[in-house]
This record gives sequence, structure tokens and C-alpha cells, in this order.
Amino acid sequence: MNVIQTLYNSPLTLLTDFYQITSAYVLWKAGKHQTRAAYHMFYRNQPFKGGYAVAAGLQYAVDWIRGAYFQHKDLVFLSEQKGYDGKPLFEEAFLSWLEDFKFKADVDAVPEGTVVFPFEPLVRVQGTIVENLLIETFLLNAINFQTLIATKAARVCDAAGGAPVLEMGLRRAQGIDGAIAGTRAAMIGGVHGTSNVFASQLFSVPTRGTHPHGFVMAFESESEAFQTFADAMPGNAVFLVDTYDTIQGVKHAIEVALTMKGRGQKAGGIRLDSGDLVYLSIAARELLDAAALQDMKVYATNDLDERTIQSLRQQGARIDVYGVGTKLITAYDNPALGGVYKLGALFEDGSWKPRIKVSEQSIKTTIPGVLQIARFTGKDGKILGDMMFDETMALTGAITDHSMIDPGDSTKQRSFRDADKVDFLLEPVLRGGEIACVQPTLNQIQERTREQLSHVHPGILRFDNPHLYPVGLEPRLHERRIKMMLDARGHA
Amino acid sequence: MNVIQTLYNSPLTLLTDFYQITSAYVLWKAGKHQTRAAYHMFYRNQPFKGGYAVAAGLQYAVDWIRGAYFQHKDLVFLSEQKGYDGKPLFEEAFLSWLEDFKFKADVDAVPEGTVVFPFEPLVRVQGTIVENLLIETFLLNAINFQTLIATKAARVCDAAGGAPVLEMGLRRAQGIDGAIAGTRAAMIGGVHGTSNVFASQLFSVPTRGTHPHGFVMAFESESEAFQTFADAMPGNAVFLVDTYDTIQGVKHAIEVALTMKGRGQKAGGIRLDSGDLVYLSIAARELLDAAALQDMKVYATNDLDERTIQSLRQQGARIDVYGVGTKLITAYDNPALGGVYKLGALFEDGSWKPRIKVSEQSIKTTIPGVLQIARFTGKDGKILGDMMFDETMALTGAITDHSMIDPGDSTKQRSFRDADKVDFLLEPVLRGGEIACVQPTLNQIQERTREQLSHVHPGILRFDNPHLYPVGLEPRLHERRIKMMLDARGHA
Repeated sequence: MNVIQTLYNSPLTLLTDFYQITSAYVLWKAGKHQTRAAYHMFYRNQPFKGGYAVAAGLQYAVDWIRGAYFQHKDLVFLSEQKGYDGKPLFEEAFLSWLEDFKFKADVDAVPEGTVVFPFEPLVRVQGTIVENLLIETFLLNAINFQTLIATKAARVCDAAGGAPVLEMGLRRAQGIDGAIAGTRAAMIGGVHGTSNVFASQLFSVPTRGTHPHGFVMAFESESEAFQTFADAMPGNAVFLVDTYDTIQGVKHAIEVALTMKGRGQKAGGIRLDSGDLVYLSIAARELLDAAALQDMKVYATNDLDERTIQSLRQQGARIDVYGVGTKLITAYDNPALGGVYKLGALFEDGSWKPRIKVSEQSIKTTIPGVLQIARFTGKDGKILGDMMFDETMALTGAITDHSMIDPGDSTKQRSFRDADKVDFLLEPVLRGGEIACVQPTLNQIQERTREQLSHVHPGILRFDNPHLYPVGLEPRLHERRIKMMLDARGHA
Repeated sequence: MNVIQTLYNSPLTLLTDFYQITSAYVLWKAGKHQTRAAYHMFYRNQPFKGGYAVAAGLQYAVDWIRGAYFQHKDLVFLSEQKGYDGKPLFEEAFLSWLEDFKFKADVDAVPEGTVVFPFEPLVRVQGTIVENLLIETFLLNAINFQTLIATKAARVCDAAGGAPVLEMGLRRAQGIDGAIAGTRAAMIGGVHGTSNVFASQLFSVPTRGTHPHGFVMAFESESEAFQTFADAMPGNAVFLVDTYDTIQGVKHAIEVALTMKGRGQKAGGIRLDSGDLVYLSIAARELLDAAALQDMKVYATNDLDERTIQSLRQQGARIDVYGVGTKLITAYDNPALGGVYKLGALFEDGSWKPRIKVSEQSIKTTIPGVLQIARFTGKDGKILGDMMFDETMALTGAITDHSMIDPGDSTKQRSFRDADKVDFLLEPVLRGGEIACVQPTLNQIQERTREQLSHVHPGILRFDNPHLYPVGLEPRLHERRIKMMLDARGHA
């Protein structure tokens, strides 16, 4: 399934920043549009002050690239754009050229569900400069958002310690796709299901839900509401107990559950949505157990995130299933991943020539080259560190022979001679614009996340002051970068 | 234009929480699905710790309601949903009933672009309980998000003090519609244009942009890049000057601007995207002025929001146009509006019977009735206060005769005998599911926002500790609410 084509009436080719099209035009006019360029998508800071992120969103980017073309109405729209001099910005010949445009780039990427770290390329595109310009914005939108939500979901599921987590954020999500793509990303991060019926249908993932407060209020009494629900839908009887008074609500739920038991049916549980979830969950559990309803589960909702769930568990709350809404679907405490897309090299005179962007803020200086990531794993199965290197530089000897250098502090070096395994994270995705990989299912991606996280040292998963996973540069790449930084500042 | 039908291949009817459909089923099975109910959508806390919000998103909700129906594949999907007892959750007869379902509700709402306050209904729906259940989630998604972004944009534009603000957040937006609907909402809040070409085309609003760093890096030198741009697109020449060294970049831009001047062309300006924007904008302005390029504008970007813009202006930055990205399109410091949708009354035995939801958290107790808002304006044109009342209670005398009571503190009362004007904020939108209003254009909504904000006391617009605008209840509504709260607690 191509997600974009399935969902939208448009290929969304114009879902880009205008400066990509104006620059493309200028390069076309200057005859530079066929120059091949290597770009990398990466981010600089871990979201949530955490120690890792979970890559996601690639499928959206690939589906967009595969389906993108300029519709006639798009070209008409561009032909109508005028400068402040009142003249059309684009020549007709350029628009004709755009009409025939099709992405034929090579794309390599870390698979969705991979644990990733700052400055590592999540996606590498080798194509013409113009292809890269036109890809940039959508790629960033898709991967920034879904990586953010997958990471948040992984943290929430980690906090829940194996208890199921359900995504329930549709009503607070940032727009329609904030909910749809957000649910997809939450599944990648590990949630067990969603309240979002449309996303459930689209992505073939479980949907869950019973009833809201308004349902209870439509009856004369809470007991009548619960009994009516149990009669109509005995296989999905989870009662929301806080419409009037929570403890009374639990008692009403127990009465109805006992009538169900008498009929050979089982009530699923109760849901708490307000108040002190520690006190109420313990009290509810005791009441349920005292009524011999040990099978009934306690669901909890109400602005939960990884920190509140951690705190609830530490305080001894008796919660079996967590429903997580706003805080997950919007990544509330860090609602954007600042991923960027930067030129690494230009193909000129038959070879790749590295390019650098320096900045007043040195964290914004790029890593020049055509990059790949080597990830080293130790004998205990835990990942040890990631070394970036330039694929076009012939490295002598085994990859483990090269000591990695920290780009921010060259006195910090690390050898991987003790590594048991090395993986190269960027894998082929598109070649000449055509699919060059087996595209995983959402279930497979979720399983990859789970498997990847099992190889991460617990210190890196910690919410506060996590261990800093080592990411560095192969020595020759490091030397080149330093030299190019000095040159750029000298030439400026 | 119906936005949903224009954008999507699906009516998105299943873009709802599963519990809406399960509850609808139970009510249908209990024969209560035709009971009419009045629901209100409102929020409890101002976003950004501010003093106001700007209502937005209604068009999306209305377009969704107008186009919603259950497709055959939706019914198949629902028929496949099973309970934990392994049995199908929904009877075939219910799915047949859904197949013929069409929204015929009456909807009243505050028009988009209206300044609104906590606890006021932004939307009121009178329809069957089932219609209300099925409307709730999408309505909340649309109005929560767009109201949030429109409000953020209004604050940013306020901070810019009349200088143009451009929306540039597509790459960091929360998914595809986070960017599209987000841009629409930003326009409602007052931004002058967007980098998002697709949104520009869809909503007929201006798009803006010139070139990114990667464009400069595709040339041997910055000067060559600028000159090439100026040659190809002289009516849109705004040069990004910080690829290597900002001050040098300004000088290169000036050189190119002077060659343009020699040809009778005008360079538009320069853009700063990193570093100390106060120092650099002042230095750039001086260099531009010294070169007799007073017409060239200084654009600034780089994680701006209302507070950084306010600070830049207070420090004397010389910035003419602000480009605002991540912080606006994601409402970064408060990325969700917690709007809710609550039952206010049921129509039984020929009249509306108020309903209340009490809660352990008293802020979560609802206001029972079929509500309308009276807004009072003083002789100076500033709005004085908003009084909610029940439209179905016959009020005696003029609306200004009724002293308003603060629902949180009944000793706080206020009279509006001094008011010069009263407006009733909820206006008819749908009657029996059909459009019952003239739908405004996006430009008209933007103009409404501007006009509305001009009637708000400056203390309410303040970013820190804003003046609390008075919102209260008509006395009989207040008395009813207190009585129902006591009754509900007593009966529980």
C-alpha cells in the first residue's frame, strides 16, 4: 500500500517549501540542475532529553517520492506566482521541464524501528540537486514527526513495564494526519492498540474502546448505563466509573459484573479517568478482588505519559492497562524533532567532492561526505558505539581497526577491537527511484523496535540524565572535516 | 470548497474513537439512539498561559459532518471487530442502520476568528445522542488544533507589532495535516503568508521563499550563488547570508544588490538564520544603509516565537519580516488545546432536560443546559464580559438586567448595565445537517480576527499574567448548576 495515494486526492508534490522550487528554478536556469548531490537527513538533539530515538516515517517519505509529479493545476499555480517586480517568477520552459519531472534518486536509510542517535544520517539521498531540494521538506515532515512519536511511545511503553499501552490521542492530535501518522508511529514505538478506528483500519492494528461519560449521562442512573452496555456488548464490557463518584461507580460496575458472571459472561474491567489514580486503583482492585472478580482489569487514563506512569507504578498503583492520549500523540513535552537535511557532497568531474556548511553555532556545522554508519555490538549483545565514515573513501583494514573520534572533542577517542559484531545501518531503499528493498509490515517494524531496544544498555533508556551513547567519526573523516572548517572560515 | 472532500480519498467517517461507535451501538440496541441531546464543545484553560484564544477549525468540522457516511468497507471492518469472548461486537442490523446514517443535526458555533475564553461553548450541537457521539472526536480534533495554532499566530503577530510574519513550519509540523490545517489556522491568526506551497494553493494565500543553505553550497562561492539567483529571479532576490560567515554574507549580498541596482533592478533583502539576531540585524542594516540600499529588508528566522520576537524588538533589532517555523506550527510551548465535548441536556417528554457531569476535580464539572453566550461591549468599544445562559429558560427583561455570577466563586458578580452593545456569539451553522449560514472566506476570517482583537483590552493580550476576562453564568443557570451538583453527589 502506498499510504499517500491511499489517503489523498493529490500526490502532494507541492507540499514543500516555496524556496525549494525557486532554488530549483535558479539552478535549472544556471544549467546546474543535473549536478548530483548527496544529502543526509539527521537531527542534533535527542527528544525528551532522552538517550535515544526510534527512527520512523520512512514509508511516508518513500511513498511520497514514488508518487510525486507536478499536476497541470500545480504548473498553472506556479506560472501565476509573481515577484515584487510584478513579473512571473518562473519561465514557461521550466514549468514544461517540471511537467516531465520524476524522482530517480538513490535513497539509503536506517530501517524504521532502528534505535538512532544525534548527527547520524537517518536517510541519505543521492540524486540531482533539484531532486534533493524537492524531496527535502516532505522527507523532514514525515521523519521528524514519526520519529518523535515512535520515540515517545517507546518511552511510555518502557515506563509501563510490559503492561499494555493504548493510544487514545485523536481528539488532541495536531490535525488529521497528526492522528493518523501519529498512531502509526506510536505502534512502531510499541503501543498495543489505538482508539483511532480509521488508523486501525488503514494500518491493520487493533482498535479499542468502550464508552465515554456522555454515554453514562444518557441514562437515569449509572447502574442502568452499565447494565445496558453489558447486555448489548458483553465481550467488551469495560465500565468508565467516574462520571459521578468513582468508588460508587466501581460498586455499580461490580454489581453488573456479577450479573454477567451469573450468565456465564465475563466483565472486562473498569476505567478510571480522573482523581488520584494510585488511591483509586488500589481501592478498586480491593473491591474487585473482594467480589471475586480478579479477572477484571483496571484501565487508567487522564493525561498520562512516561513520567506519570513511572510515578504511578512506584507508588504501587494497581493498573493493568494504560490509555495514553494528548501527551503521546503530540509529544507534549517536546513536540518537534529538529531534523535537518544537509548537503554532504557534490559529484563533480567523476567523483564525489565533500561539501561543508559552517555556522556561527558550531553544532550547526555539517559532516562532509557520503556517509554510512557502522554500529558495533559487544559480546553481551549490547551496542557499544556508532562510527560514521565516508563510503567513498577507501578505508584500509577492517572497520574495527579504526578508532572513532568524538566530533565535539577530538581528545575523546574509542576503539572497537572488542566488538563482536558490526552492522552498517544505512540500507538501500530506492535505486533510480525504484524500490530496492523488501518493505516491512508495521508489525515487523514494531518487532524491530522491540528487538533493537533489547540491545540498548539500560543507562541509555533512563529518563533522567541518560548515559550518552558514543557516536563519532572515522579518523580520516574527522580530519577532513576539521580542515574544511578551517578553510571555510579562512575563505569567508 | 469542502476541504475534506478536496484533500482526501475517504470521507474519514471512521476517524473517530472506537468508543463512540461501541456506545452508539449499545444505545441503538437499547432503543435510545433517537433521543435528542445538546452537546457543547469548550476548553478549560487558555493556551500559552495567555488571556484569550482565537476560535478556528469550524470549517473542517462542518465539511466532515457534511460529507460523512459509512462506506461498505467501513461496515465490513466493523463487522470483523470481535470482543474478548471471540464474538462479533456489532449486529448486522446495526451495520445496516449505519449504512443509511446521515448527520441531520443542528449546529451553532462562534464564527472562526472570534476571540474566546474558557468554559464558553465554541460549538453547540443539537442532534441525536448517536449523532453527537459520532461527531465528537473529529470536531475536537479540528477545533482543538486550529484554535491552538490561530491563537499562537495571533500572539506572534502581536509581538511583531505590525511587521509581516511568515509561516515556515512545514518541515517540523506534526504530519501532513499538521502543516496544512496548521497553515490555515496561522493565516486566521494573522500571518501574512506561508512557505507551504500546497497550503498556499489550497487556501489561496500568499507563498514566500527564496533559497536555503544547500543552494549556496552548490556553488564555488557565496557571491556566485547570490549573483546566479539575482540573474534568474530578480523579482524575488532575498539572500540567505549565513552559510559561511554572516557579515561577509551581507557584504556579498550588497555587491550583488549593487549590480542589480546598476541594471535597474531591486534586491528584496537579506535573511539571517543563525547567530545573534540583534547584533547581526543592526550590523546588516548599517551595511545596507551605508551602501544606499535602504529599501532592502532584513528577514529573520531561527526558532522564533512571540517571546523571542518581543525580546528582539526590545533590544533594538532591525528586523523587517519574521519567518516563524517550529514554534508556531506545533504551538511548541503548549502543543495541545484540551477542548472537550460534553452533554448539556437531553430532550425528553417534549422539553430539554439539563444534564450535569460532576467530577472529583471540580473544574471538570460541566454547565448543564442548552447554552448561548451574551458578550457585552462598553462605550469605548472594548469587550466587558461574557455571560452564558440557557436558551431554553425564558429570561425576563433585557439581557443586561441580569448580573453575571462567577462559576468558581459565587461572591464574584458583575452587572452589565453600563454595556453599550450585546452580541450573541453562537450563530446557526447547520440546520438538519444543511448549511444555514454564509460561509466566510479565509481572508474574511483573518479580518474578523483582526477586528475582534482590536476590541480586547491590552491587559488581556499581555503574555505574562494577563488580565482575566470575566466569563460567568446568568443567575438562574448558576443556581440550577449548584443544585444539580449537590443532587448528583447526594445520589451517587
